[in-house]
Amino acid sequence: MDETKIINFTNSSKNKLTPCSISSVKIKGFMNDYLETMLKVTIPSQYELLESTGRIDNFRIASGKKEGSFKGLVFNDSDVYKWLEAASYALLFTNDDDLKEKIDNTIKEVKDAQEDNGYLNTYFMFERKKERWTDLATKHELYCAGHLIQAAIAHKRVTGEDTLFDVAIKFADLIVDTFGPDKKRGAPGHPEIEMALVELYRETKNQKYLNLAKYFLEERGNGYASTYRFFNPEYYIDHKPFKELDEMTGHAVRMLYLCTGATDIYLETGDEEIFSTIERLWENLVTKKMYITGGAGSRYEGESFGEDYELPNRRAYTETCAAIASYMWNYRMFLVTGEGKYVDLMELVLYNGLLSGISIDGKHYFYVNPLEDRGKKRRQPWYECACCPPNISRTLTSFPGYIYTTSDEGVYINLYENSQANIIYKEKEVKITQETDYPWDGKIRIIVSTEVIDPFSLFLRIPSWANVFDITVDGEKLNKNLEKGFLKIFKPWKGPHEIILNLPMDIKFVESHPFVRENLDKVALKRGPMVYCIEKADNKEGDVWNYLIDLNEKIEPENYQINSKRVIKLKAKGYHEDIQNWEGRLYSQSGRVKGEKKKSDINLTPYFAWANREEGPMAVWIRK
Amino acid sequence: MDETKIINFTNSSKNKLTPCSISSVKIKGFMNDYLETMLKVTIPSQYELLESTGRIDNFRIASGKKEGSFKGLVFNDSDVYKWLEAASYALLFTNDDDLKEKIDNTIKEVKDAQEDNGYLNTYFMFERKKERWTDLATKHELYCAGHLIQAAIAHKRVTGEDTLFDVAIKFADLIVDTFGPDKKRGAPGHPEIEMALVELYRETKNQKYLNLAKYFLEERGNGYASTYRFFNPEYYIDHKPFKELDEMTGHAVRMLYLCTGATDIYLETGDEEIFSTIERLWENLVTKKMYITGGAGSRYEGESFGEDYELPNRRAYTETCAAIASYMWNYRMFLVTGEGKYVDLMELVLYNGLLSGISIDGKHYFYVNPLEDRGKKRRQPWYECACCPPNISRTLTSFPGYIYTTSDEGVYINLYENSQANIIYKEKEVKITQETDYPWDGKIRIIVSTEVIDPFSLFLRIPSWANVFDITVDGEKLNKNLEKGFLKIFKPWKGPHEIILNLPMDIKFVESHPFVRENLDKVALKRGPMVYCIEKADNKEGDVWNYLIDLNEKIEPENYQINSKRVIKLKAKGYHEDIQNWEGRLYSQSGRVKGEKKKSDINLTPYFAWANREEGPMAVWIRK
Repeated sequence: MDETKIINFTNSSKNKLTPCSISSVKIKGFMNDYLETMLKVTIPSQYELLESTGRIDNFRIASGKKEGSFKGLVFNDSDVYKWLEAASYALLFTNDDDLKEKIDNTIKEVKDAQEDNGYLNTYFMFERKKERWTDLATKHELYCAGHLIQAAIAHKRVTGEDTLFDVAIKFADLIVDTFGPDKKRGAPGHPEIEMALVELYRETKNQKYLNLAKYFLEERGNGYASTYRFFNPEYYIDHKPFKELDEMTGHAVRMLYLCTGATDIYLETGDEEIFSTIERLWENLVTKKMYITGGAGSRYEGESFGEDYELPNRRAYTETCAAIASYMWNYRMFLVTGEGKYVDLMELVLYNGLLSGISIDGKHYFYVNPLEDRGKKRRQPWYECACCPPNISRTLTSFPGYIYTTSDEGVYINLYENSQANIIYKEKEVKITQETDYPWDGKIRIIVSTEVIDPFSLFLRIPSWANVFDITVDGEKLNKNLEKGFLKIFKPWKGPHEIILNLPMDIKFVESHPFVRENLDKVALKRGPMVYCIEKADNKEGDVWNYLIDLNEKIEPENYQINSKRVIKLKAKGYHEDIQNWEGRLYSQSGRVKGEKKKSDINLTPYFAWANREEGPMAVWIRK
Repeated sequence: MDETKIINFTNSSKNKLTPCSISSVKIKGFMNDYLETMLKVTIPSQYELLESTGRIDNFRIASGKKEGSFKGLVFNDSDVYKWLEAASYALLFTNDDDLKEKIDNTIKEVKDAQEDNGYLNTYFMFERKKERWTDLATKHELYCAGHLIQAAIAHKRVTGEDTLFDVAIKFADLIVDTFGPDKKRGAPGHPEIEMALVELYRETKNQKYLNLAKYFLEERGNGYASTYRFFNPEYYIDHKPFKELDEMTGHAVRMLYLCTGATDIYLETGDEEIFSTIERLWENLVTKKMYITGGAGSRYEGESFGEDYELPNRRAYTETCAAIASYMWNYRMFLVTGEGKYVDLMELVLYNGLLSGISIDGKHYFYVNPLEDRGKKRRQPWYECACCPPNISRTLTSFPGYIYTTSDEGVYINLYENSQANIIYKEKEVKITQETDYPWDGKIRIIVSTEVIDPFSLFLRIPSWANVFDITVDGEKLNKNLEKGFLKIFKPWKGPHEIILNLPMDIKFVESHPFVRENLDKVALKRGPMVYCIEKADNKEGDVWNYLIDLNEKIEPENYQINSKRVIKLKAKGYHEDIQNWEGRLYSQSGRVKGEKKKSDINLTPYFAWANREEGPMAVWIRK
């Protein structure tokens, strides 16, 4: 394997930062447990599901190898492609011949279903051929094509093979030949192909793919993405031109994929109007429309963003795919700017609203991630609309690629994870070892050694949750001035040099802007990047929905296990109210029906791990 | 006009109580202002809208008088029928020849659109003829038929004419011939025809209409009401047999109409399993799924009920039609039982969640009635789906009929309103005058006189909000034992006798069951039956969303005007927080960003009257 190859992103001329290859980092910590689960459980079981639900059969039917007609939802092809992308990344960590065979066989089925002219979508076959490109709003044709392209690039970069890539190029070329200002006009109802086309441009250097991505972005607001009006144009983010958007609106995943693709387009075109738009939208997201878990999308209806500060807990929609989209978008924003705040958000989303989408056993999924529930919501083994499960897989198998970046000035440590890395900087290796129990412990021992003779900068992200920190380099204390959220250490690094970074994981009480009226007089607890919740399984007395936390009592972190997964729980003190005397009444006009207030221990566990055990109420925001 | 004729309901053998005629009561108070508005503004303007939006033209097109094709939503016919019902009631209060002519002309258009075999639905004409009765789930064919029947009965009872009634009978007979266990099987996706068929049975004494209503009720749960599965069967309340329902679920208006129809069926059949079902459902509604305004239906998606205690304020759906349905259902429950608690609910719904659906000017409507808003939601002059506006009209024009009922034991005063009534009891007149400023003042002077010689009981409802009250009869204090929420006064009433009832309208602080977690640490204020809110228009300092009310300070009622409508506002004291320093932040982990807490006057106005003035934030639940 060529260690220098950047798997998930190639560099752009406009990047401030250069991504590092997935294969340049060997992870061993918290995220490696997930990676292991991906390899052993999730990816194999998802393949079985792709087969058993007819998703691969759809390709066999399209190629005439099998009798029957298309089964499932119009975008089912994309689940196969997302799995292929994830499985390709997985090959970086395993020599499993069985997996390799599954990938090759699946690629063969995909290839055989492609028409001579390059067209490939198993829904639009036979009698539906005539419907091709007639309903871009809801039929996900370009969306599926985008996932094909992304999978193909991943597969080519990992294996060096062109089997899937040739298929993707053929289809991409057909799409290039079909759409444009002087050809068929159109824009995808569900953005996705934009980022794929930009990556294809990066891979091939062929400008036509970038041009088409740009065209699709600029075509929005003309009604081409919302031709079928089951929802209003806002749902498709087609109500105004992209550059006029000033609010995160419409379908949350569509909106966030659009922003991600737009950032890619900016990275290659340098169109500053695009960048000022996405900055404005990002501000709106993080200051008015984001859950404390990093989740996004408040409404079930239209799976959409709500108004500013509309962040219901029980009916939070917060689709797992929206969390993934936010993670992808923030990474690109970081590549543009080198600003730590974007990585802070990646970290927040990852450990909370994204990981909550998968069970500890690696084979149950949340599509929707509420912040409060009576406990009836359980992760499912699969969904008819299964966009989230393979999206999780491709994100977690590519995780090592997000830990480091480089720039002209040096090497960035974006994320902390027990790991060993060989980063290429100025064509030489920089070896970086992180010894840490992050995200459970903020102490990180970093060993750096390199053949680079000239001094360069090592940039360490100081997460925004850490308002104090300590750092020594080879035992010497450092000045702690931050630049864009990073601590910059400029020196010769031949080494080995030892850095001890300590990010004290004090327990923080978080409050919401008062306009989030349902969080008034409530707090959420965070420790490091982790958001906590209270769940019945750890709190047997009374009902956790009636807990009050005593903020004056000491709260202690404690080692704990949830389904054999090691976590840190928080042991707090507080009260629970006996609400027996509310029975049968919804409103009381004699003032609060007083219940006995009993002293209670309150056990808080990480939000991502909820609903892995017995059913029962859960809440992130706790009365104080 | 025959004063004894019961306009809105005829009596059933199973009724404990007998309804009184709309025309037996001349109202002069708060509700009469609405009645006047109906006559002068709402009914004429709705007629114009029925014309300008093509709703009457649809009939002209169906009969071939006009070229063109059906315009609008599939259930647009029902808006015309609801208007005809309201306009018929209106004829009880006005001799307006123009209105009479509009009614007659509209009936002629309806009649001319009917086919020889009785079929009548302007959507299912011409090329859509073959689709008749093929999609009962979503196409509202039986729903529209139900509204035709209700309008026809109202028109016949008010005018004595058979013009519309003959049309309705002809269609009803076709439906009877079409559906049944041994004929075409089916059940309406949107209940409504059940109550219409029962009333038609009452009007005609023809058992076949009752049988069909019963059949439609019992057919649910077999999949006949949810054949087209855009939503799940629960949406259509078709997921289990009616008698097995134990929770208010699915589409709120459908569910509540179903309960209303089921109560009618119980009233005529005495099927106790139906009654135990509706009692169970009613308990679920009022103890777990009802807003403090009486509104019902928590979710935008599917316009549906949520889970127990799922009562979001900002995203409350609380469709005006659901409030009307609850009002209708509770009236029937009262007829069955004589229990005051059902009238308490009618009163709550009427003055709050129902009247909020119409503006003070009588020509703007809320379809959705949130309990908290930033102020962008405004009443609209009409809706594409205009079910609510004419539903309000038929409810408010029939209001006088709900004030009194009779039983073997005597006369019930259900509702209080400045008014004069001639109630028929044992075939003799009982004259009852109410002198009152209700609902603004709880003092009611009641003058009773009659030719009935024998003593009988007068039942005065003591609303559940009044935990104390005073009453004198001819100056003498009475024993205050309540029976089923009523004070029973048994005596000879030849009179005139004077009753002075005083229901002190203390200001009450209402709290929610703690499982409504967004209302924790907040109160709502009520005075008498009125629920109050805070609105920008009356509170210029700061933002009402940041108000805290001081419950230890005295709160004073005060005369006030909202768009020239006289109301009682409440003047309270409290604080408002300056939230400038939250700007740009959604979460703060340094604990609450302290704002200066400024002493403020807090002005509360009745919820029903919100959004009649300038835009601005509003909230019912206030931090304390």
